[in-house]
Amino acid sequence: MGKNRLEAFSDGVLAIIITIMVLELKVPHGETPDALLPLLPAFLSYVLSFVYIGIYWNNHHHMLHVATRVSGPMLWANLHLLFWLSLFPFATGWMGENHFAAMPSALYGLVLLMAAIAYWLLEQTIIASEGPASVLKRAVGRDWKGKLSPVLYAIAIAATFRVPWVAQAIYVLVAIVWLVPDPRIERTLHREKV
Amino acid sequence: MGKNRLEAFSDGVLAIIITIMVLELKVPHGETPDALLPLLPAFLSYVLSFVYIGIYWNNHHHMLHVATRVSGPMLWANLHLLFWLSLFPFATGWMGENHFAAMPSALYGLVLLMAAIAYWLLEQTIIASEGPASVLKRAVGRDWKGKLSPVLYAIAIAATFRVPWVAQAIYVLVAIVWLVPDPRIERTLHREKV
Amino acid sequence: MGKNRLEAFSDGVLAIIITIMVLELKVPHGETPDALLPLLPAFLSYVLSFVYIGIYWNNHHHMLHVATRVSGPMLWANLHLLFWLSLFPFATGWMGENHFAAMPSALYGLVLLMAAIAYWLLEQTIIASEGPASVLKRAVGRDWKGKLSPVLYAIAIAATFRVPWVAQAIYVLVAIVWLVPDPRIERTLHREKV
Amino acid sequence: MGKNRLEAFSDGVLAIIITIMVLELKVPHGETPDALLPLLPAFLSYVLSFVYIGIYWNNHHHMLHVATRVSGPMLWANLHLLFWLSLFPFATGWMGENHFAAMPSALYGLVLLMAAIAYWLLEQTIIASEGPASVLKRAVGRDWKGKLSPVLYAIAIAATFRVPWVAQAIYVLVAIVWLVPDPRIERTLHREKV
Repeated sequence: MGKNRLEAFSDGVLAIIITIMVLELKVPHGETPDALLPLLPAFLSYVLSFVYIGIYWNNHHHMLHVATRVSGPMLWANLHLLFWLSLFPFATGWMGENHFAAMPSALYGLVLLMAAIAYWLLEQTIIASEGPASVLKRAVGRDWKGKLSPVLYAIAIAATFRVPWVAQAIYVLVAIVWLVPDPRIERTLHREKV
Repeated sequence: MGKNRLEAFSDGVLAIIITIMVLELKVPHGETPDALLPLLPAFLSYVLSFVYIGIYWNNHHHMLHVATRVSGPMLWANLHLLFWLSLFPFATGWMGENHFAAMPSALYGLVLLMAAIAYWLLEQTIIASEGPASVLKRAVGRDWKGKLSPVLYAIAIAATFRVPWVAQAIYVLVAIVWLVPDPRIERTLHREKV
Repeated sequence: MGKNRLEAFSDGVLAIIITIMVLELKVPHGETPDALLPLLPAFLSYVLSFVYIGIYWNNHHHMLHVATRVSGPMLWANLHLLFWLSLFPFATGWMGENHFAAMPSALYGLVLLMAAIAYWLLEQTIIASEGPASVLKRAVGRDWKGKLSPVLYAIAIAATFRVPWVAQAIYVLVAIVWLVPDPRIERTLHREKV
Repeated sequence: MGKNRLEAFSDGVLAIIITIMVLELKVPHGETPDALLPLLPAFLSYVLSFVYIGIYWNNHHHMLHVATRVSGPMLWANLHLLFWLSLFPFATGWMGENHFAAMPSALYGLVLLMAAIAYWLLEQTIIASEGPASVLKRAVGRDWKGKLSPVLYAIAIAATFRVPWVAQAIYVLVAIVWLVPDPRIERTLHREKV
């Protein structure tokens, strides 16, 4: 009941976030490669954020797939997640424009951290609604990725003020960790043929 | 018949409104916290409007859920609501850019007021189409929230010209009143297992 | 088969068009009513275009509702319609910024004219696919609105260079003609309980 | 399972891409035809890209229609395709603003090339998931269009540095080749009444 609309709305917001981020890549006036080169940091930031939004969409997709009903708290936990994700274009644009400087990189990490916490809250809200015997609860298991990511983001934020590139390295590393397909939910689903 | 498409279109418009509002948060040129600080009013306006659009999406979701058919007047009452909601990015941006000054705050209140009236009109249109014995009619009941909000918005608009912060306080207060889950429709639904 | 996706894509494009038009209402810097007043023509243009896109969405909704299958030519006739509608934000912005001057008003009329022709082509494509005995064919009937509108748009375009306000009057008039609910399709649907 | 959401998300992204491209057509300040004329290259670029995104949507529509399940790799192959398509507004804007100069035209060709490769990868991922006896495998057949396009794009990119208009001619030519309805999938579908 209503799950379709929750998914449709989330898909709409995620689709818009992932697409308007590209608007921060301002079309340069010159027609030479020199005009394009200063956009490289903005482009790399865009790629990183595209991958992150893609990961969120992917995991959101799997998580809602196993939810069997939609509750009021779920709607708000979902909006809370979308709120932090909606700050990606701003954080990405600021970090890209300032060539991965300390403060913008820290803010980017903060947005990542808050989004990770919001995702975890949504997960807990769904599990609370579905019950401890739910597919999601068993699929998520001990959820080392979900617990490790916020810690790494926090380390990255602290690192920005000393060795900025370490923060970028951590952001890329966490993205790769998530990119590797998460066999937990899919495996549990296969086993139970949900 | 056709309800899915009405929901999908509304979801699309609401998803875009909630997301393009973030574009009013212009990426600053500097890389220091000083560059970020002037954006605080714009950020707070964004948070407030995000919550309001979230509330509208939430209530719209519940209201259409109990509608059993789509009529011509409903389509237009819905577009009328979306029109006023589409002015949120403009009103939010103007209020944020001018640090909650009187006129922009009054205009923000006016948009809130018109959206509330448009929502009430849509509700009445659906009830007229569904009949007095409909789930929605019984669920909405006396609708004290729906009647109280426009009055409070009007007071807030009047207040902007004397004590501007009272208007902001009222906008936040009304949002909180609506954020508290509305048990009416959900309860009626549960009772009747629609 | 596939009709859902055609509707979803069209809804997405229409939802975005109707919403990004509001971005042409640039947030003014001042905080006084004087700062808002110069935006009045842009606001009125926005209202007019919002109504037009609403009408197109509404009619598109009804037309596709009676289509029973999706053909290749239909997909392209639909994209052709969306192309002309996608020029609404540009034409609206130009007309609003120049306070309904002759050329921008003529271009606005041209976009309206091309969209009307594109809509008619889509209608014919669906009728060709559904057959002369289809619900749509009988519902549309002689289609005086669809035939009258392009003529009126052409008159309006010609009028812009002599009496500009006549063009605006015609644009508003045609919108009102369409706003009055079209009982043809709905009536035919009711009769046949499709 | 989950195919609807994959389609909905892709439709959302494609709808936004096709629509925000129009934002690169900046509303001019003057109200004369002279103000409009400099926008002609930007307009022509927009038309070309609109057609290309339309073609991708169309083919994507057909390809996913015959997919019977959604796998993890498919989700990422799809996001990879959407990534390259999301660069269309940027590449289109740069080419239009610089009146089809060499470098911007080459970059446009590069985005076309990468999107074509990403589409092919998605196709292969689906075929791998569906098996060699799948409808898609038989429908695509030897896929001369899919193999010819990248070659032509590469030739066009090389041509931009000598005879720029040849590149444009190739981009238009390839679009026409794809515009001609692809009878392969539709025919196979008809035969098998999927």
